[in-house]
Amino acid sequence: MSKEITSRKENYSEWYNDIAVKADLAETSAVRGCMVIKPYGFAIWEKIQQQLDKMFKDTGHVNAYFPLFIPKSFFSKEAAHIEGFAKECAVVTHYRLKNSPDKKELIVDENAKLEEEYIVRPTSETIIWNTYRNWIQSYRDLPILINQWANVVRWEMRTRLFLRTAEFLWQEGHTAHASKEEAIEETKKMLEVYAEFAEKWLAIPVIKGVKTENERFAGAVDTYCIEALMQDGKALQTGTSHFLGQNFAKAFDVKFTTKEGIQDFVWATSWGVSTRLMGALIMAHSDDDGLILPPKLAPIQVVIVPIYKNEEQLNAISEYAMKIKKSLEAKGVSVKFDNRDTHKPGWKFAEYELKGVPIRIAVGPRDMENNTVEVARRDTKEKAVYQVTDLELKIEHLLDQMQHNIYKKAQSFKDSSTYHADTMDELADILDNKGGFVYAHWDGTTETELKIKEQTKATIRCIPLNNHKEDGKCILTGKPSSQRVIFARAY
Amino acid sequence: MSKEITSRKENYSEWYNDIAVKADLAETSAVRGCMVIKPYGFAIWEKIQQQLDKMFKDTGHVNAYFPLFIPKSFFSKEAAHIEGFAKECAVVTHYRLKNSPDKKELIVDENAKLEEEYIVRPTSETIIWNTYRNWIQSYRDLPILINQWANVVRWEMRTRLFLRTAEFLWQEGHTAHASKEEAIEETKKMLEVYAEFAEKWLAIPVIKGVKTENERFAGAVDTYCIEALMQDGKALQTGTSHFLGQNFAKAFDVKFTTKEGIQDFVWATSWGVSTRLMGALIMAHSDDDGLILPPKLAPIQVVIVPIYKNEEQLNAISEYAMKIKKSLEAKGVSVKFDNRDTHKPGWKFAEYELKGVPIRIAVGPRDMENNTVEVARRDTKEKAVYQVTDLELKIEHLLDQMQHNIYKKAQSFKDSSTYHADTMDELADILDNKGGFVYAHWDGTTETELKIKEQTKATIRCIPLNNHKEDGKCILTGKPSSQRVIFARAY
Repeated sequence: MSKEITSRKENYSEWYNDIAVKADLAETSAVRGCMVIKPYGFAIWEKIQQQLDKMFKDTGHVNAYFPLFIPKSFFSKEAAHIEGFAKECAVVTHYRLKNSPDKKELIVDENAKLEEEYIVRPTSETIIWNTYRNWIQSYRDLPILINQWANVVRWEMRTRLFLRTAEFLWQEGHTAHASKEEAIEETKKMLEVYAEFAEKWLAIPVIKGVKTENERFAGAVDTYCIEALMQDGKALQTGTSHFLGQNFAKAFDVKFTTKEGIQDFVWATSWGVSTRLMGALIMAHSDDDGLILPPKLAPIQVVIVPIYKNEEQLNAISEYAMKIKKSLEAKGVSVKFDNRDTHKPGWKFAEYELKGVPIRIAVGPRDMENNTVEVARRDTKEKAVYQVTDLELKIEHLLDQMQHNIYKKAQSFKDSSTYHADTMDELADILDNKGGFVYAHWDGTTETELKIKEQTKATIRCIPLNNHKEDGKCILTGKPSSQRVIFARAY
Repeated sequence: MSKEITSRKENYSEWYNDIAVKADLAETSAVRGCMVIKPYGFAIWEKIQQQLDKMFKDTGHVNAYFPLFIPKSFFSKEAAHIEGFAKECAVVTHYRLKNSPDKKELIVDENAKLEEEYIVRPTSETIIWNTYRNWIQSYRDLPILINQWANVVRWEMRTRLFLRTAEFLWQEGHTAHASKEEAIEETKKMLEVYAEFAEKWLAIPVIKGVKTENERFAGAVDTYCIEALMQDGKALQTGTSHFLGQNFAKAFDVKFTTKEGIQDFVWATSWGVSTRLMGALIMAHSDDDGLILPPKLAPIQVVIVPIYKNEEQLNAISEYAMKIKKSLEAKGVSVKFDNRDTHKPGWKFAEYELKGVPIRIAVGPRDMENNTVEVARRDTKEKAVYQVTDLELKIEHLLDQMQHNIYKKAQSFKDSSTYHADTMDELADILDNKGGFVYAHWDGTTETELKIKEQTKATIRCIPLNNHKEDGKCILTGKPSSQRVIFARAY
């Protein structure tokens, strides 16, 4: 298989897919819309999981596990949820197969039809709130701060690796509170956790905001989100945190006795990020040579490649390299020494560039003589010769610097791709010719929002938190507006 | 809800269920046969996962993720697999719901029927070997050493929390090798990993063995297993490792070019343990007061309970307790200080006994005067007064000692519940009146094995590895036998 990847200019979408596939992150499977996450891709996801899990636990949350299946009738209980959600989903109708009469294949056993169909969870609010009903009697049982790592299924028609797949992996937080204020505080707290994770770990700057009614999660009172900008100027929603009010408590009759002895419905939040983050990670930073990974999420942070002519040289270099490897590993840096004799150094260089390994160390005979190594960084492609003295400190420093640099680069891109538009023409022009986030006035109605979407293919990504107030006129209707919202074409 | 639990003598099965439910480990859900794993139970499972994951990685394995769904036709490709496996399973037939004509509920959209049904994975050999076909061309692509953490579904008719549920969580290793020898070595290596985990972490002694043909995994050439003994004298299979030969490679046409340039089918293994381990953990050690956890898997290893008369005392004790908590945590011991004023000390004592917290530290005013604490261990219920000087070292030592003691206790039980039987009457008598592992001669045929099962409800748990060879006569047929195998009634 050729490792050549399409350039962004040539075809951005193919470039994305090439990186996902050729850097061994994921591939499509025999099951429509479902992907296989390959070991290298999964190692990145594990790093994402570990850090998020730590941040959830540090903010008082615990993990639990709820059933994969949800009785169909549960979806009918929350009116908005039913309307907005569970249509395109996997439906389990039978629980047994049997041999065909000729015994050559398996067929569905029609005698094993479920009385009520089960839906493979597209999200778990319904089954969880049905469970919480038995867990909550009094304010003493609150708050419940639970997170679940799980697979979910939404029958998407047009799928793309990581960005939109029928099955995907995610975490979903589902919390229960005694007051509206506390639930709103939780919703915002988790948005902050997501934003911090995006900026410090994914190295992706994000805009925190709240969705319009039209873009809100089905069943939510308010949906908070973080929005990131990809290199093609399209936005990607990278995380959402929902204030659910008492909607699910009412739908599933979850009441509690307050401190004052009054019966009230419980307040809820839910929040989630998914393997979509892998898509954001690929698209935000990578270049035409392959993946660029922020060092904090790189499964291999440093690769050492030996440059040698014969086995004797390789043996000497191996000893030299293993010392470096150990000193780096002692500092917590993950290192791979690639001493395979089946591939040439040039091939290895290209391979690790494609896979986004942050630092490549090359060691040849002359390096050993001089007590040096050649260090190449993936983000800027700069090379330098380092003395091996204190190499582990220099590498640690370089990894930090790269993490920062990758973020800064994404931030400048975002800043230089953020515009103001005061007319529909301006909006359309920016979207067609530049892409990016466009701040514009909007009259606050869903009708206008949908019309603008129809004309420009842009949606309102969010109303930014702590937004600057500014009187203006809606770019479509000319009606008064008190603030600009962010339009963009989006994934 | 009463926290009283049924005694083992009264009703072993209810005792088990009471602990699972009342110690907040799990509960049944609204979905037939599926459980909710509650935060405390899930925290134990996370500890199991973390340790196993580390052991898998230390032996060279990596994680990946394959689709939840498997096309129905895949199951028909491996003849033994189809026969032995995929009958009772969840079948996805449709991919969309729609509103009912009266718009009051959701119904299945008959226009969204799948051409080929999908099966929710009961195990993933088929989808994984279908994927491996594209990953393997040459011996250079081997071995592939992949593990997957996943949920699987088997439509069990009679379910019990953790032991047998329709959906359960597990890990499944799926490896691919260039030679038969290497695959067998892998199969045995993973059996050793499981045995080490069971003994050192779960504190459960196990017998390593190989299954008879009749008890073999569908599609395997050999199934290796570890078998543990529960307190009611019934066996519990706690892990299996399968040598799959070239069966799945042949079924999915997975060939490779050997070093010698010849085309051959790839050799396979698979191995797994599941949330069933939680059931083993509960049943192996617990008593009539609740759960007993080996310290290494306890989410809370030490709980500190203050004994006080007024707020002033509580404040003083809190300061004293927090110092202890910090010094223990600095040693990596997980500690909870339960300063709730809503519950009395006696209630807390019972609660933490029920939940199997290994060590309880009680602190009252007199302890502060004397610079002491009262330490109670869960396994033996012994109490002692400790000087706080070097308390963290004493507690560390005590936790080690308890881990060891819990294992030793289970080991003596297993040893004293292991018997030899030379006739069917002896076998039946032991099974009816004592329970346990029974070594007996068997003629090696499935026919005899099934007849013995019919008469005694006992199955052959395994042929122990490195079994003692001994000439004898089959207890049923009197035919010659060269070794004893292990019979037991089992979960």
